[in-house]
Amino acid sequence: MRTEKSAAAAGIATKALREVARTEGVPVDLLMERVAAGRVVILTHRGRALGIGEGLRVKVNTNVGTSPDSHDPVAEIRKVKAACRHGTDTVMDLSTGGDLDALRRKIIAASTVPVGTVPIYQAAVETIRAERRIDRMNPEKVFESIRRHAEDGVAFVTVHCGITRRAVERLLANPRRVGVVSRGGVFTICWMLANDRENPLFAQYDRLLAIAKKYDLVLSLGDGLRPGGVPDSTDAAQIEELITIGELAAAAWEQGVQVMIEGPGHIPIHEVPANVLLEKKLCRGAPFYVLGPLVTDLAPGYDHITAAIGAAVAGWHGADFICAVSPAEHLALPTEKEVVEGLIASRIAAQAADLARGRCDTTEATLRMADARFQRRWTQQERLSLIPHRVREIRSSRRPAASDVCTMCGRYCAMKLLQRSLRKAGRHG
Amino acid sequence: MRTEKSAAAAGIATKALREVARTEGVPVDLLMERVAAGRVVILTHRGRALGIGEGLRVKVNTNVGTSPDSHDPVAEIRKVKAACRHGTDTVMDLSTGGDLDALRRKIIAASTVPVGTVPIYQAAVETIRAERRIDRMNPEKVFESIRRHAEDGVAFVTVHCGITRRAVERLLANPRRVGVVSRGGVFTICWMLANDRENPLFAQYDRLLAIAKKYDLVLSLGDGLRPGGVPDSTDAAQIEELITIGELAAAAWEQGVQVMIEGPGHIPIHEVPANVLLEKKLCRGAPFYVLGPLVTDLAPGYDHITAAIGAAVAGWHGADFICAVSPAEHLALPTEKEVVEGLIASRIAAQAADLARGRCDTTEATLRMADARFQRRWTQQERLSLIPHRVREIRSSRRPAASDVCTMCGRYCAMKLLQRSLRKAGRHG
Repeated sequence: MRTEKSAAAAGIATKALREVARTEGVPVDLLMERVAAGRVVILTHRGRALGIGEGLRVKVNTNVGTSPDSHDPVAEIRKVKAACRHGTDTVMDLSTGGDLDALRRKIIAASTVPVGTVPIYQAAVETIRAERRIDRMNPEKVFESIRRHAEDGVAFVTVHCGITRRAVERLLANPRRVGVVSRGGVFTICWMLANDRENPLFAQYDRLLAIAKKYDLVLSLGDGLRPGGVPDSTDAAQIEELITIGELAAAAWEQGVQVMIEGPGHIPIHEVPANVLLEKKLCRGAPFYVLGPLVTDLAPGYDHITAAIGAAVAGWHGADFICAVSPAEHLALPTEKEVVEGLIASRIAAQAADLARGRCDTTEATLRMADARFQRRWTQQERLSLIPHRVREIRSSRRPAASDVCTMCGRYCAMKLLQRSLRKAGRHG
Repeated sequence: MRTEKSAAAAGIATKALREVARTEGVPVDLLMERVAAGRVVILTHRGRALGIGEGLRVKVNTNVGTSPDSHDPVAEIRKVKAACRHGTDTVMDLSTGGDLDALRRKIIAASTVPVGTVPIYQAAVETIRAERRIDRMNPEKVFESIRRHAEDGVAFVTVHCGITRRAVERLLANPRRVGVVSRGGVFTICWMLANDRENPLFAQYDRLLAIAKKYDLVLSLGDGLRPGGVPDSTDAAQIEELITIGELAAAAWEQGVQVMIEGPGHIPIHEVPANVLLEKKLCRGAPFYVLGPLVTDLAPGYDHITAAIGAAVAGWHGADFICAVSPAEHLALPTEKEVVEGLIASRIAAQAADLARGRCDTTEATLRMADARFQRRWTQQERLSLIPHRVREIRSSRRPAASDVCTMCGRYCAMKLLQRSLRKAGRHG
């Protein structure tokens, strides 16, 4: 089948590509070049297209999904709808509890944005349910899950192809504090160690590419060895995996398959720029999809903020896609409210990055907000805000005596005093 | 009177200096050198000392205070106590409503940490109450307010000494979108324009230094011309004021007076490192006290996150002291809950900076947290967390089936699976 990448390489401006060019304000030719080069991927969902990568607005993903201890499909669908309402760009279904096929299909139907999954979860969970041991997972089941998800309309899948035997050796040779925290990564490693075999998604990578090509399924090359605590950041196992992923990205491109690269994880703030640089160099400019990074381990309960700090720095330095982290991360499966709080924090990080990278639409909105503030046009400020309902809530809960100021300064509003003073002095600010 | 700075310059290790050396884990001699050089300031409050500056833990301030539209002293005292309970390092009373003297004294009594104020607020508010116009403010009243605050036991005051006639000319010659948003700055400019006179805190700076010296009152040289929107960032007026402030800092040091430098404001993330560098160079290493910076204007209602992102980057690059911004910033006087949320976000930013700057205590705590996570010791994780009660709330609201995991992954806990798998394979991770 023709993928967005192979079409672009052939000089064909698909409907999806033209849609992305229009919504992003990027010339069709330039976008086509970048899709052809693998620097931009195009995801589709029910006829709508979303671009991620170089020169485009930084995007945000929201994770939803059940777990063995908490598997109410109604709650997860509510999270999907809330995330779409609050401006997420994609949704990932990470379910590991309940009827996985049924829930995934419901999520795809409920979502207004492209949906991603981690198919190995299904293969592993069904194996453990049936056999009580991950060791017995049949590699066929992994490929079968990927194919089934693609058929259902999933736009992108996380595949931990970079966890090779060599990477596992590097992991064991360079001890970590927190081991491996990627569930898909650990399923893979457990299977490899127990069976003394190579990762099937690496050993049979061509087979994976054939499925991806058939459905134009975007591969999100997962960072199964991402650091799970800042003491383990930017270590040998992480970089070994990243080098392999870069090679796998190049191999995918040869087949016209679109790829993104997943990134850490727990990284102290001063190492974030180097992590983005390494991805951009080793993976030849492929879009970078970051989870945080979380810049401290000491704030469980508030990791949406920890992650937003890292994501803003990563986005400024070139990361393209941010996976939202909820305040419940490391502690529990998040509630709907926590999912939304995580999404908002990540959208703020994306905005900060877009501004730093000179996105025209962000710069324009920023100028309009500055004018609305100086003129104290509150309704316009609300409209320009990323989260208008929150502005309304705060304003309406504390009404100022004069409607053109706020209760912080009241009659001593600095902007109002300055304007009056300049007028009196016959000067203009 | 002997100030901490003049004592250090004379080679005297005061009780306060020794206390700071001990709590910060810094050798007394090194700290003494830095206090003597003005690179560290020591604030005191009821016999307790707090150091701010080079090589020390990044500190966080929490603003409280009434406004004309909202002046319940009980509510403000509650905010002070909540901020102290949630780990603020200092509190600033920014009151402009109600009985200012009475409230300030109550705040000083209620606070367990050093208290700062902006005395020009009192001079301006009392003038406007009596005369209805800031123009009539008597410069004597400004100095009198400063002296009164110092007598009451205030540890540091914001003084907008750098707003000179030349700075105002620069402001008018280089038009801005959002004008001036510092209340103290605008009070000063309005008075200067109406009276066609130089800023009294600049013109009579020696008089200010004499008061500061007498009480060892730390001067926080205020950035009255800080940008109030990212389109105005790092502009001529801001930098003109910073240059002057740097000269004023040197003049203060000659008198043994301790100073900090206040910084922006609204700054896009990629300009934050340059703003820190400029302060450190132009102000010869004086401690930098930042308000945010807010890295986007588009998230009112969530500016605690916007500010935490900027503060983390600033702290990483050398800022020493972070002023917390509440979620209500730009919209309303914050509630107690909002004040606490702002403080927590800023403490996370400070942690991220401390980690990046290699603070031993942060690094130690991070290693302990990593071990507690990997071993799934939840009580220890709670204890090590910046906000233990939030960890407890989340964990206890969603109890996992097995007590050593969480409801996010349940039986598929990556760390637990990996440990079991490595044991079975006879390997150690």
